[in-house]
Amino acid sequence: MKYIQSSQNPQVKQWKKLLTKKERDRSETFLIEGFHLVEEALKENQVVEVIISEKIGMPSRLDIGSASVTMVTEEIADSLSDTETPQGIYAVCRQLKTDDGVSNAKTFLLIDAVQDPGNLGTMIRTADAAGIDAVIVGRGSVDVYNSKVLRSAQGSHFHLPIIRGDLENWIQELKEKNIPVYGTALEGASTYTDIPAAESFALMVGNEGGGINKDLLMKTTANLYIPIYGKSESLNVAVATGILLYYLKK
Amino acid sequence: MKYIQSSQNPQVKQWKKLLTKKERDRSETFLIEGFHLVEEALKENQVVEVIISEKIGMPSRLDIGSASVTMVTEEIADSLSDTETPQGIYAVCRQLKTDDGVSNAKTFLLIDAVQDPGNLGTMIRTADAAGIDAVIVGRGSVDVYNSKVLRSAQGSHFHLPIIRGDLENWIQELKEKNIPVYGTALEGASTYTDIPAAESFALMVGNEGGGINKDLLMKTTANLYIPIYGKSESLNVAVATGILLYYLKK
Repeated sequence: MKYIQSSQNPQVKQWKKLLTKKERDRSETFLIEGFHLVEEALKENQVVEVIISEKIGMPSRLDIGSASVTMVTEEIADSLSDTETPQGIYAVCRQLKTDDGVSNAKTFLLIDAVQDPGNLGTMIRTADAAGIDAVIVGRGSVDVYNSKVLRSAQGSHFHLPIIRGDLENWIQELKEKNIPVYGTALEGASTYTDIPAAESFALMVGNEGGGINKDLLMKTTANLYIPIYGKSESLNVAVATGILLYYLKK
Repeated sequence: MKYIQSSQNPQVKQWKKLLTKKERDRSETFLIEGFHLVEEALKENQVVEVIISEKIGMPSRLDIGSASVTMVTEEIADSLSDTETPQGIYAVCRQLKTDDGVSNAKTFLLIDAVQDPGNLGTMIRTADAAGIDAVIVGRGSVDVYNSKVLRSAQGSHFHLPIIRGDLENWIQELKEKNIPVYGTALEGASTYTDIPAAESFALMVGNEGGGINKDLLMKTTANLYIPIYGKSESLNVAVATGILLYYLKK
């Protein structure tokens, strides 16, 4: 096992760069933190290397497989964390390539410009729970490999393909494959319970404040609405996603 | 309009004390921040006084009604905020008394030990949207008047009664009124779609990690389960609440 003591070590500098979207995109990797996430990533063979603080030592119940392991000082380990109570365990993981495992997908979640990392992560976790085949994240959303998105998704990044793409193109492609695309909107929309549950569909949800871009809404098969029975103005976007996915999924 | 320049002013000290649960409980008031929340509170006549930073001045479109208004320096205003970008407007509001408006309530959300303020606030907002009549929050949950809970609930605190109470007593009382109480559990539970939607029901949800206390689960009418179709271990508690409330509500 390698052991690194200097925060000036080039490998430490490279790990820290993974805290930026730019370097994650360039290297097609990302950094995860915490025992649960590392365990999920190892299970799914997505890990390039594991980084462990000498303070915690090698957890005996972790099945490392073929991943390399590096031990580092507590100071280096903490410098890779954005939480207040770092767990001392990290992994560098591979990003899935754009078209891995989606050619046969029948159910999709399309996400337009969701900006809160907790919301985006929770939506990915919810899509996973609902058995959705792929998540497509459009422009204007927070980066899917942002550390808070990863934390909120609780490992679902390793369970289903999460693809960054142009939603306009995706809507067109899905419709050509006879997969209905449902937007969510407050005006000119049908109550969601008017739509039948189905074996294949794509649900599109949008920005916390403004909803889905109007140009995209005009291209959908139909647009849905969740009735508000009380006095609140709207639902949280992750909650709305859960209600709709569990309703639509056959 | 009063104008306060000194952070040593006793009234400023009193407002700051409202950042603690202890003082909120003693005074039966709480502090809200931001234009949207203050507007909602004024609409529902829950405001004791409005506090405005001299930096923003009195917003012309705010209908103050009978509430008193105090102008303060930007420094004082910012000291009342726990956000990074304070909006410069606050209000001291009355807490609803325990039994306001629940004697005729037919639908309830019972919350056992939910600790994340964002989750609790989102659950209150979701209960409001679903037209639930009252929210009962048991011991071990984050304070319902915590500033992050208030922010996530987006004004729903002013739309429906939110009551702190003993869940065991509540379950018994509801059952005596022939209102079925549904817990949520992973074991020994029915798939939620096996339960019919109804005019009256109480849904109980629990802690993010451990779920509902086992003693409470044994006292319910039935316990429900949301199937997980993918590989995630569970759903976020606010998302689960949304799926179940929108399913159960007739």
